[in-house]
Amino acid sequence: MRPYVLINSAMSADGKISSFLRRQVRISGSEDLLRVERLRAESDAVMVGLGTVIADDPTLRVKSEALRSWRLERGVPENPLRIVADSRARTPPEARVLGPGCIVAVSRYAPEDRLKELSERCEIAICGEDRVDLRELLEMLYRRGVRRLMVEGGGTLNWSLIEQGLVDEICVFVGPMVIGGQDAPTLVDGRGFPENFQRLELESAERIDDGLLLKWRVVRSA
Amino acid sequence: MRPYVLINSAMSADGKISSFLRRQVRISGSEDLLRVERLRAESDAVMVGLGTVIADDPTLRVKSEALRSWRLERGVPENPLRIVADSRARTPPEARVLGPGCIVAVSRYAPEDRLKELSERCEIAICGEDRVDLRELLEMLYRRGVRRLMVEGGGTLNWSLIEQGLVDEICVFVGPMVIGGQDAPTLVDGRGFPENFQRLELESAERIDDGLLLKWRVVRSA
Ligand SMILES: NC(=O)c1ccc[n+]([C@@H]2O[C@H](COP(=O)([O-])OP(=O)(O)OC[C@H]3O[C@@H](n4cnc5c(N)ncnc54)[C@H](OP(=O)(O)O)[C@@H]3O)[C@@H](O)[C@H]2O)c1
Ligand SMILES: NC(=O)c1ccc[n+]([C@@H]2O[C@H](COP(=O)([O-])OP(=O)(O)OC[C@H]3O[C@@H](n4cnc5c(N)ncnc54)[C@H](OP(=O)(O)O)[C@@H]3O)[C@@H](O)[C@H]2O)c1
Repeated sequence: MRPYVLINSAMSADGKISSFLRRQVRISGSEDLLRVERLRAESDAVMVGLGTVIADDPTLRVKSEALRSWRLERGVPENPLRIVADSRARTPPEARVLGPGCIVAVSRYAPEDRLKELSERCEIAICGEDRVDLRELLEMLYRRGVRRLMVEGGGTLNWSLIEQGLVDEICVFVGPMVIGGQDAPTLVDGRGFPENFQRLELESAERIDDGLLLKWRVVRSA
Repeated sequence: MRPYVLINSAMSADGKISSFLRRQVRISGSEDLLRVERLRAESDAVMVGLGTVIADDPTLRVKSEALRSWRLERGVPENPLRIVADSRARTPPEARVLGPGCIVAVSRYAPEDRLKELSERCEIAICGEDRVDLRELLEMLYRRGVRRLMVEGGGTLNWSLIEQGLVDEICVFVGPMVIGGQDAPTLVDGRGFPENFQRLELESAERIDDGLLLKWRVVRSA
């Protein structure tokens, strides 16, 4: 058993989630940022890959006071669990995602000294041999009560999850801009499918913030 | 003066126009294919880059008998002009795009022997020093009466045109699938903008073929 997995992202009209500089860029408008914040507050856990931690240094916490209170009223912690997929425990010790409520998932390949240092700032979960075994990680999260997991990128982690059939839904805000670049990160990177692409079903398309919010359901092959 | 330039493409939900194998893939459904055929018939010229000629070997002609007759009735040739951007005249002599009504645009860098061979199968236009100068090419087309140019890819040509401010509209069918791949071609490749991204305006979003047809207007900076 694994949680319901939803990928959420913002991309340009040409599918880029950042420029070739791989720094955080502003694609969403204010309405979309509010939506993302709500989605986070409704999740039991939020996950990113190491690349996103290094590029964007996100906090992955719920900023709105009201939404934090709303969570507390429901008897859950102010913030969803924060998960980082980081096979070799390379998350910088000053990363803002760290602190109580953060789990860094590593592989058995992670060096002892890194684990020791990191374990002062977060919980460590060991899943997989050379790379984080995402299925094992999701099963572990499920056992800990996580029923709804929101994945906030980037393209490399998104690819691994989709390739392994671990995603139920993709929510993407398409912003009114072209970023371009053969080396710019896209919504789904990694190796990619050579053929037999992953099929989706368009659940809804809604105009917000001069762009478009698309909700795709991932179609399970029989 | 240059023609009105419209980029038309089909991409996956993650912005890819092919897989990392760079072969032609089927993203559009039958309704979108009809739309593309109509768009072609309404254009004075259709353009692709050499990469697309090599990967897809498109004919760039109007297949529908009815649309060809419709063009003839309007007093224009059955097919729009077919343009290939190909700096060094590397278009294979057996490429299906060649024949009467095809112009291969090359740079002054193109070797004589290639030009000689190709000129038996098409018209040659020399624009630019080391690479095809697209602005010069568009001006030449305008002088020849081309008022509406449809660009059918790929991502490298799309990038050059957008970077140089030569595009008015982008029509993209977003198909219900994930292709993925950091090396897969996307709607706009090339170098990409580091910042100050090209702004767009969403003109329309329409559901067709289980996907979405988006029309973006390119916003001219003041
Ligand atoms: N616009 C948006 O919505 C948005 C959202 C997020 C990120 N971004 C952008 O995306 C870019 C970062 O994306 P990214 O693709 O470089 O990084 P990423 O997907 O965030 O992280 C990838 C890293 O995660 C680690 N990882 C551990 N286990 C993995 C597994 N099983 N599968 C895949 N990865 C695993 C890998 O490093 P190890 O092998 O060392 O473990 C891998 O290199 C940045 O430019 C950021 O700004 C944009
Ligand atoms: N899904 C779709 O709608 C769709 C449509 C078309 C293509 N595709 C896919 O796109 C891929 C091909 O894309 P691509 O990016 O490799 O090729 P491309 O954009 O079709 O062609 C690029 C080539 O055009 C030539 N060129 C000449 N002058 C240029 C200029 N000023 N700026 C840019 N290029 C210029 C360059 O070669 P020289 O330097 O030698 O001149 C360049 O390498 C294929 O996988 C194809 O299947 C998909």
